[in-house]
Amino acid sequence: MEILGSIYTERWLLESWKKKKAGNTMESFFKVKKPEEVLALLDQFGPCGKEELPLDEAFNRVLSRDMVSPEDLPEFFRSTMDGYAVRAKDTFGASEGLPAFFEVVGEIKMGENPQGSVRQGQAMRISTGGMLPGRADGVVMIEYCQPLDSETIEVSRAISPLENVIQPGDDIRKGSLVLPKGHRLRPQDLGVLAGLGYSLVPVFRQPKVAIISTGDEVVPVEAVPTAGQVRDINRYTLDAFCRAYGAIPEFKGICPDNFERLKSFVEECLEKADTIWLSGGSSVGTRDLTLAVFETFDDFELMVHGISISPGKPAIIARIGGKPVVGLPGHVASALIVAEVFMAPLLANLSGAKEIDGVHERRMEAHLSRNIESKSGREDYIRVRLRREGKEWIADPLFGKSGLISPLVEGNGMVKVDVNTEGLYEGDPVVVLLFR
Amino acid sequence: MEILGSIYTERWLLESWKKKKAGNTMESFFKVKKPEEVLALLDQFGPCGKEELPLDEAFNRVLSRDMVSPEDLPEFFRSTMDGYAVRAKDTFGASEGLPAFFEVVGEIKMGENPQGSVRQGQAMRISTGGMLPGRADGVVMIEYCQPLDSETIEVSRAISPLENVIQPGDDIRKGSLVLPKGHRLRPQDLGVLAGLGYSLVPVFRQPKVAIISTGDEVVPVEAVPTAGQVRDINRYTLDAFCRAYGAIPEFKGICPDNFERLKSFVEECLEKADTIWLSGGSSVGTRDLTLAVFETFDDFELMVHGISISPGKPAIIARIGGKPVVGLPGHVASALIVAEVFMAPLLANLSGAKEIDGVHERRMEAHLSRNIESKSGREDYIRVRLRREGKEWIADPLFGKSGLISPLVEGNGMVKVDVNTEGLYEGDPVVVLLFR
Repeated sequence: MEILGSIYTERWLLESWKKKKAGNTMESFFKVKKPEEVLALLDQFGPCGKEELPLDEAFNRVLSRDMVSPEDLPEFFRSTMDGYAVRAKDTFGASEGLPAFFEVVGEIKMGENPQGSVRQGQAMRISTGGMLPGRADGVVMIEYCQPLDSETIEVSRAISPLENVIQPGDDIRKGSLVLPKGHRLRPQDLGVLAGLGYSLVPVFRQPKVAIISTGDEVVPVEAVPTAGQVRDINRYTLDAFCRAYGAIPEFKGICPDNFERLKSFVEECLEKADTIWLSGGSSVGTRDLTLAVFETFDDFELMVHGISISPGKPAIIARIGGKPVVGLPGHVASALIVAEVFMAPLLANLSGAKEIDGVHERRMEAHLSRNIESKSGREDYIRVRLRREGKEWIADPLFGKSGLISPLVEGNGMVKVDVNTEGLYEGDPVVVLLFR
Repeated sequence: MEILGSIYTERWLLESWKKKKAGNTMESFFKVKKPEEVLALLDQFGPCGKEELPLDEAFNRVLSRDMVSPEDLPEFFRSTMDGYAVRAKDTFGASEGLPAFFEVVGEIKMGENPQGSVRQGQAMRISTGGMLPGRADGVVMIEYCQPLDSETIEVSRAISPLENVIQPGDDIRKGSLVLPKGHRLRPQDLGVLAGLGYSLVPVFRQPKVAIISTGDEVVPVEAVPTAGQVRDINRYTLDAFCRAYGAIPEFKGICPDNFERLKSFVEECLEKADTIWLSGGSSVGTRDLTLAVFETFDDFELMVHGISISPGKPAIIARIGGKPVVGLPGHVASALIVAEVFMAPLLANLSGAKEIDGVHERRMEAHLSRNIESKSGREDYIRVRLRREGKEWIADPLFGKSGLISPLVEGNGMVKVDVNTEGLYEGDPVVVLLFR
């Protein structure tokens, strides 16, 4: 059975017309959802699975359990300075004018358990990171020690007990929570795990995203498009988007507007991927084709059919066999904005990550350089380019007809115009969501 | 010949003492440089080389030349809506009360050059992304078209010429600069390159960073350290740091404090890597050993021996055979801060990248929750944890003895206390450099 886009289009045309007659708006026909409703629905999806990785492959991965310290760090009394390990009380009262004298009874080798200990009036040479000998409880910095002969030094300053010394557990105490489940591992996090002896790290699996481009007009980048054809832009944009958010993209190919072909693409992807992202179908016909294919699966559940944002309204989100299956708009600008606003949180959910973008959330405050008009009843995302003016950031709105890619390339972020706002004025303070 | 750390230490001790006697400070002995001097010196290093990559491997890579559009995008008059392609002037005057009638003479298939053209009073069915037929100069949205029979529609709204149409070159004009040399490729940048038919992208090679951990006390993560030993924390921290900044880390191993061994490590790395980062040697002896090894190379040039920052002062930067060779402090906190402040710009230079961190530069404004004391004469980097209080960000300074890793793990950034400042007060506005 082959269902042509045009058949769907005509059907839609008539139905749309009937609804209009009946006083319904397109909004209700589409079952359009508000952005916050969509985000709440996406929170139903959880991490894809777990694995254990060697430490040097775990950068940017998400911890799948709380990491608790199995030992004290450090495990021994450690010097933080180059100098001489002594009993602090033997330095009491020492000064430039009235130095204290110490007998040098040895030198502590790095990485070794010191031989012997210091008694009253004795000192041992120690380097930064060295282990204190028995009975020593402080280190005098080398600047305050003057060698008189090979066995004697003069100390010109008193130290308090534990001065220039780290005690066992000072850094990390045994049994304490070092890093929580859901944390994305940064360089220093791998460092502390190394310090505690974790050569393997429990992390969540990276979600696999199957990417399908649809549309009879879409040709591969290597092709020379004939009149009416366009090269596949979304494939590369969505592929890189997935990488930016720690997912593994797998491009499955360009699928023409053909029911059976699209169904077999989706079937194959459902087996291998954790989520499927189709893009294409800016026209109503293609969009309906996508939905018609989804509907053939037994365990299909339509979650979102249209979102009250612009651009990006025609997005479809469904669940098939527990996996999120997404129909993104065909225009790259719409597809990328839906991805930034909704797919980034979805990928965070599938990755088990507690945060998407760290503390700054990729947001910056700026002032608008021009008025922005907006239709009330939807969230508008306006592409902007940021520039500095003195201490302030200015956001220049980049206007242009819908479906252009250049404002995304010239821009470095976007400004949200809230659903109940008619627009924003020149000079208004705005929050810019930065492109990744 | 084996030179022990302790021999160096003693020599340094005596020399230091002599300098002190002569009224010199440690600063002059170390030839300590200011941070801005160090950054200027690092600007001497340029990109490592070029390569061409398939588009889907080019995410986050840096363009090695300006990308100019070889063609118009789009190449044809394209509809931005579902509807009917018409001559705009035929709709003039049309309204709900007085609709215009059109004869439907065909449907435009996606990806195809339309057969025929529209004449006065004629329309062709078109989908979003479709190519306009000859003589049509606008598209009426489907909402304003009511089918009367299979060959006639009623149009209830006038359109202006080019309404709902993108003209050739509207998005990108042939010959225009699309993306500049030195730009790091984002998802949408790959998209536009795909749209223009670039299946291969000219980029700079990623710098290869050889990482060596030094110190007799350092053991691998898999080892159970005996008293006085510590696991290799810096290896994993620096490895991930390099990945975060688009470089390729190659860990070369743990080298004991041994002149010949260290020399052969450096020799091997000079052949294979673009830059060498040794870490370790927080003690003066080890630091001198590193420098002694560097000095044996004919084309050695010492650029920096100490930086007036804290932590991180003992850093060494040299040039051997044109390659930057760096001795980072042994404590991970110091090593990571030197890396964030100086190695990130170095990697950007070696990568040919114009920016390090995008427009936000990983900086956020916050207010201090406590006083910070600082020695004037150096830049102090204080680790902080950010938290939100209403609309404001509060930076809580994380104090602790030097050489701890936990403040880096608890923190999400650091605050710079300028060289000529004695400290900062509770409530002061500060700029937080966020950890990667």
